[in-house]
Amino acid sequence: MFMIYSTKNDTFFMGEALKEAKKAFQLEEVPVGCVIVKDNEIIARAHNLKETKQKSTAHAEILAIDIASKKLNSWRLEGCDIYITLEPCIMCSGAIINSRIERLVYATKEPKYGAHESLLNVFEFESNHQIIVETGILESESNQLLKDFFKKLRSEKN
Amino acid sequence: MFMIYSTKNDTFFMGEALKEAKKAFQLEEVPVGCVIVKDNEIIARAHNLKETKQKSTAHAEILAIDIASKKLNSWRLEGCDIYITLEPCIMCSGAIINSRIERLVYATKEPKYGAHESLLNVFEFESNHQIIVETGILESESNQLLKDFFKKLRSEKN
Repeated sequence: MFMIYSTKNDTFFMGEALKEAKKAFQLEEVPVGCVIVKDNEIIARAHNLKETKQKSTAHAEILAIDIASKKLNSWRLEGCDIYITLEPCIMCSGAIINSRIERLVYATKEPKYGAHESLLNVFEFESNHQIIVETGILESESNQLLKDFFKKLRSEKN
Repeated sequence: MFMIYSTKNDTFFMGEALKEAKKAFQLEEVPVGCVIVKDNEIIARAHNLKETKQKSTAHAEILAIDIASKKLNSWRLEGCDIYITLEPCIMCSGAIINSRIERLVYATKEPKYGAHESLLNVFEFESNHQIIVETGILESESNQLLKDFFKKLRSEKN
């Protein structure tokens, strides 16, 4: 008799983050989405709500980290992976470090504000634990969504 | 006839931030307090609630930024000063940058996690506007409060 294990993979979870990013797009927010995964299950999902909530802290990552902490009843998100459609900014990278997330996966880089490989790399200053970082999952899909968003924004301004 | 102008100064506002830090101390939280000031008036005050709320994002600065944004009904905290009793971490420094706060004043440095002069300086990567940073206001008072806290913590552990 055979046991079949269905293990969801990075592409699956990034696809879910991309669904969140599309919700942000619909709200005319910069399309960034995020999911947090523990033991192969999504425990938090969120999308950028900065303009909707008029809160500079309402990035997808911060919202998802807060949801995950509530779910686990702990600020320590040990053993969790975070999937983001865009390289995190300084604030969100710091939040990922503070929350003790184990692994960060993002789709595409943020040339102006990204705090892992673009503007600077704040993760190299981390001392408590080394976060595993992987990039490029569904990169072209996330890039396309961002391009569509900024194209739409420009066309509406003209 | 004389007009008397009473202008509150940095020491006054840092004193208010210190009052917030003392509230955190009472809750057995690392004693960090923060106020945000606009037009010489405090529009937000908060203290560290990380353990109480079990939220890694519940640092005094993030909580105060959210309160200030709600008060002004805008994520843009232009023309605002933030007073913190401790050098901000990467997350909070990023949040200060994102919120467009004009001026950061903190009492004492955070040798391990501070993101302005200790661990690194994330503010030098800021491109949109240059945040004015001032330090050392009520430095010894803030240091003493932190020392008392960690001394108490150690004595309770023994």
